[in-house]
Amino acid sequence: MHVIDAQALREFAAALLGAGGLQPDHAAEVAQVLVWADLRGVESHGVSRLPLYLRWLRTGEMNGAARPRVAFSLPALQVLDADAAPGAVSMKMAVAMATPMARDCGVGVVMVRGTTHTGALGAYTSALAGTGLVGIALAASGPNMFYHGAAAPGVSTAPLSIAVPRHGDGPIVFDMASGAIAFGRLQEARAQGHTLAAGSAADASGRPTTDAHDAVAPLPLGGPKGSGLALMIELVCSAMTGAQILAPALSSTDTPPRHRQNAMVLAFDLARTAPQSPDQAQAQVSALVDAIKSLPSSTGSPVLLPGERGGAESVRRAAHGIPLGARTAGMLADAAASLGIPVPWSPRPLHS
Amino acid sequence: MHVIDAQALREFAAALLGAGGLQPDHAAEVAQVLVWADLRGVESHGVSRLPLYLRWLRTGEMNGAARPRVAFSLPALQVLDADAAPGAVSMKMAVAMATPMARDCGVGVVMVRGTTHTGALGAYTSALAGTGLVGIALAASGPNMFYHGAAAPGVSTAPLSIAVPRHGDGPIVFDMASGAIAFGRLQEARAQGHTLAAGSAADASGRPTTDAHDAVAPLPLGGPKGSGLALMIELVCSAMTGAQILAPALSSTDTPPRHRQNAMVLAFDLARTAPQSPDQAQAQVSALVDAIKSLPSSTGSPVLLPGERGGAESVRRAAHGIPLGARTAGMLADAAASLGIPVPWSPRPLHS
Repeated sequence: MHVIDAQALREFAAALLGAGGLQPDHAAEVAQVLVWADLRGVESHGVSRLPLYLRWLRTGEMNGAARPRVAFSLPALQVLDADAAPGAVSMKMAVAMATPMARDCGVGVVMVRGTTHTGALGAYTSALAGTGLVGIALAASGPNMFYHGAAAPGVSTAPLSIAVPRHGDGPIVFDMASGAIAFGRLQEARAQGHTLAAGSAADASGRPTTDAHDAVAPLPLGGPKGSGLALMIELVCSAMTGAQILAPALSSTDTPPRHRQNAMVLAFDLARTAPQSPDQAQAQVSALVDAIKSLPSSTGSPVLLPGERGGAESVRRAAHGIPLGARTAGMLADAAASLGIPVPWSPRPLHS
Repeated sequence: MHVIDAQALREFAAALLGAGGLQPDHAAEVAQVLVWADLRGVESHGVSRLPLYLRWLRTGEMNGAARPRVAFSLPALQVLDADAAPGAVSMKMAVAMATPMARDCGVGVVMVRGTTHTGALGAYTSALAGTGLVGIALAASGPNMFYHGAAAPGVSTAPLSIAVPRHGDGPIVFDMASGAIAFGRLQEARAQGHTLAAGSAADASGRPTTDAHDAVAPLPLGGPKGSGLALMIELVCSAMTGAQILAPALSSTDTPPRHRQNAMVLAFDLARTAPQSPDQAQAQVSALVDAIKSLPSSTGSPVLLPGERGGAESVRRAAHGIPLGARTAGMLADAAASLGIPVPWSPRPLHS
């Protein structure tokens, strides 16, 4: 286990991506979003993704020289054609585009078309909430989750994030996927030989299983609710903007289609609608948060707000460094060696 | 069991509401939305709610002479102060207000403040989708669901609906609440002595129970996901617009606060963003729907789209009438007798 300073990890990630063919400003933006997730303890969306990103840069599935462009524009709705840019780059552009529309029109919506892995959506919604706006983000991807009642994956574990501004303590950031279990957790259970919770995943024939080795994909959260939500996210983010992902993937019988994601970023300037003043909205946010935290616990542990655990972890890791597991550190060391980049940790002898 | 023609049931519902003090145009709108739910087989959101609505009209919690007004306006965001109008009235106004904003700005958002029971959100999102727009609706209400990790109800079973237009077969309408089980189903299980599914509800001390008699409220869908979503819906629809519901309800120790709901209605004119033409978006919606319907079934039954069962039921019930259970029919007959309104069915002798 290595413990790395967040800034050193950002610079290392950016250097790897730059050496892998990504233009330097984009490399820095991707590194920032990956380390944002690592700070919060969401390793599945952190630097562990770098080997995959480097592979996509080699195959061209991620465009190292992307020039995203605005393809459609109305006062409160724009479409960003991402040119296969890294998800973090397109999503940050979407945040920047949605913000002035929200200030002028009350709401700003950006449909991001043809991007790649968008990562932790909370990074973008919390950026909006940090400026006083309400942020919502959705992302659509390829089929990696069972559709309710079907014996094969049909939808993605499409995520949804909502963030609300809060004075003092930073935004309240909610982030969920539509599966009963995260894909990363399924892989982790497989690697470690853990048993899965009942109803969280199914085997190749679509039968629920608790054996991580037999499990091929997550089952949807709450059956038809999770798969219905995931289907609607693809319909809204992909089909309605003419950028479908799932239908061609499901009908293709040979090579898997190239990796693509679509997303929707919404910003709302809601506080100014409060009858008294924006302060009234903030006071009511605080009152609700306090009331929830004051509910009697059913477990003996404190009642938690969305994102509260990750936020506290982020403060700790910013101060004390980010622990990197042996598997991730090993993969990154290999990638660094092949690209001629020094690793930001000193090699340690293995203790037997 | 009585089977009533949909139009006769609408007229009966409107007559009851009118006699109960609701202005005639509003009575007709509420009746239409209640029967929309009954047609789809969602009895919990249908005319079974009329006794409650009539009680609210008597207490003033629902305003029979409401004059909703636009309290805030930007090009793509408006606030409708509902003046305690019936939810159906305010939500239909919100649909009408959101539509031209979506045509002009690409998106139109209406925050509905201080309304009452909004009913089946799919009625409003499908109305938007019927005109070619994507519709989304959220609603916030009082605490009737456990917050994850808490031993007391802290949030509502806040619903979310998304509808997408589709050529020919009518919109695809998704409608979910954030609880593991609907409140109405919990009451039904109690009335019929059924056992609850594990993890769907908890008793007065917050412990999960499968005994419907011990269960006081639903547990959230997927633990922190369902309660987090419900909390964010209250933050967005209520706190951010200065119209909080949950915080005062949770801090009040004596009388339950008067019934109020807040909601958000979003309309998006997305099809015009498709690179080729709006027809491209429609073709991609159809392609995805076909691909999902063609997935191999894991149950032997057809794979269903969101809202597909309710849509088919609606066609059947429009042709053959709406069955009313004995309990609902009895309550409505009592209400009709006290208001001097004839019931639209002939009394039948009870068979012993």
